[in-house]
Amino acid sequence: MPKMTILTEADLRKIVRLDLDAVACVENAFRALATLPVAMPPILRLDIPEHRGEVDVKTAYVPGIDGFAIKISPGFFDNPKLGLPSVNGMMVLLSSRTGLVEALLLDNGYLTDVRTAAAGAVAAKHLSREDASVAAIFGAGVQAGLQLEALTLVRPIREARIWARDMVKAEAAAAALRERLGIIVRAESDPAKAVKGADVIVTTTPSETPILKAEWLSPGQHVTAMGSDAEHKNEIESALVAKAGLYVADSLKQTRRLGELHHAIKAGLVAADAEFSELGQVISGLNAGRTSPDQITLADLTGTGVQDTAIATLARDRARAADAGTIFES
Amino acid sequence: MPKMTILTEADLRKIVRLDLDAVACVENAFRALATLPVAMPPILRLDIPEHRGEVDVKTAYVPGIDGFAIKISPGFFDNPKLGLPSVNGMMVLLSSRTGLVEALLLDNGYLTDVRTAAAGAVAAKHLSREDASVAAIFGAGVQAGLQLEALTLVRPIREARIWARDMVKAEAAAAALRERLGIIVRAESDPAKAVKGADVIVTTTPSETPILKAEWLSPGQHVTAMGSDAEHKNEIESALVAKAGLYVADSLKQTRRLGELHHAIKAGLVAADAEFSELGQVISGLNAGRTSPDQITLADLTGTGVQDTAIATLARDRARAADAGTIFES
Repeated sequence: MPKMTILTEADLRKIVRLDLDAVACVENAFRALATLPVAMPPILRLDIPEHRGEVDVKTAYVPGIDGFAIKISPGFFDNPKLGLPSVNGMMVLLSSRTGLVEALLLDNGYLTDVRTAAAGAVAAKHLSREDASVAAIFGAGVQAGLQLEALTLVRPIREARIWARDMVKAEAAAAALRERLGIIVRAESDPAKAVKGADVIVTTTPSETPILKAEWLSPGQHVTAMGSDAEHKNEIESALVAKAGLYVADSLKQTRRLGELHHAIKAGLVAADAEFSELGQVISGLNAGRTSPDQITLADLTGTGVQDTAIATLARDRARAADAGTIFES
Repeated sequence: MPKMTILTEADLRKIVRLDLDAVACVENAFRALATLPVAMPPILRLDIPEHRGEVDVKTAYVPGIDGFAIKISPGFFDNPKLGLPSVNGMMVLLSSRTGLVEALLLDNGYLTDVRTAAAGAVAAKHLSREDASVAAIFGAGVQAGLQLEALTLVRPIREARIWARDMVKAEAAAAALRERLGIIVRAESDPAKAVKGADVIVTTTPSETPILKAEWLSPGQHVTAMGSDAEHKNEIESALVAKAGLYVADSLKQTRRLGELHHAIKAGLVAADAEFSELGQVISGLNAGRTSPDQITLADLTGTGVQDTAIATLARDRARAADAGTIFES
């Protein structure tokens, strides 16, 4: 009888956390993307305009990982009127050898949150200065907190500034993060001041117009932009892509189409076929990361299927070890 | 607490059968495809060459249907060596209004079998002569039997001939179908003889070279080719596409790329942009179906996401009515 394990969000929150294991598993996924014949087909996208709904389906096969995830991410933006969250999501984990369903991860987007934040840690680990101690976070949502937490895993962060359009939300996020992380965290209403003196800046918003100006940046800073996962999103002034001494994409194919790079290309500041490094090439040593303490570095993260496959197999392994979830036989 | 219904293959076989309801639901799906703003994105395809594996993910949203299916169809061709079936598959049914998961249909491809056969019935209902009583089936697999059964639902079939490359399999299929359908069914080793005098011919094989010759066809016959769901598959001699008085696609966008039409275009017998009818246009009366008893008609079926959405919602409705399946709360 085929058996599969069903893991709910509550199960998954117990067994998978944003920790160094999660960071390592996502780092390995990016390394594989650069060095192995990974299969990562274009995202399947379905739009349901009547209900302001959209669904993305992502997948990737990474040689050497014995499972692959198919992630279903619906966003239905009238849901809050019905008392439901806008964004849901689940992953189906299949065996790479047989195609049989091994696990159903009813994570409601939790694993995506973790793997997205873990990618921020990986970018900072390879691109920011080793002594980076001050962070500026743009945005006050779930990723704002997770990205700051991710930075503390890889760099000696002692102080953070939170900027958000809504200062009330920024204050609330700062208070919660102070409590959770035990470091100095304050809200800052002036984005330029938030950036000044920060070693790492992470933008985590769904903004459609730039919120981070190139002129605010100074030598040695690292920026991770992780909010742009669709063509209309744009957090970074395009001049910054040109100004950065090192631009690194999670997937160049994706950032040329969806990321901050796409806006710089559209603005004519970067050639459409200009070559840049990918995170996996830096991780694996194929391409250089930061080469001087004064370099401005920029990581453009759009989210990749290899991260989903990595975190889903980590979840399954942890579930096996902890005997977590519900076994369903069919 | 979000609830979803899990239906196993055994559950689904009890509540969904190849019957006139299944035919009607697939017919409605094709009608919607022709008359409503259906969203049917290109198939997501992942290949895992190390294990001779492939996975297709299909989806479609049909306005007016309150759910939509995301179908995951893995084919792993080394599985038989491991004592496992090559082809598996499941569908996730989401609410069209909220994107929440409503049901998990662990059908192992059963619902695909039913909706594929139902499309054959729909094609025969609208394109074959009303008095069609003799069928020729090419192939001896699951679809061979289901396609014949489907014909008996919509036409007064009293006799059938089964041709297959392997005559032993053809004999076995004929015996099983005689028993199951209570009509005359015999195996025929000469494909030309199988076709002669048949009113409806259905090809159901994974052949990569034509098995049905144009010269065997005579006035009034209807052909449904349903085996070609990938570029390399080809059951029908391309001359037949040109010879047919009426060619009808399930989805012209797909048959131009995957179906028998694609081979006729490649052979230079049909212009790449030649316009043809789609099944939904014939069903809805937008375009004519068979216009004379002597016309040769050809239906080119590649399989569409709207059929999956239709059969998955039928399954969910039946499960609700029968209180079938397992409720899973998360």
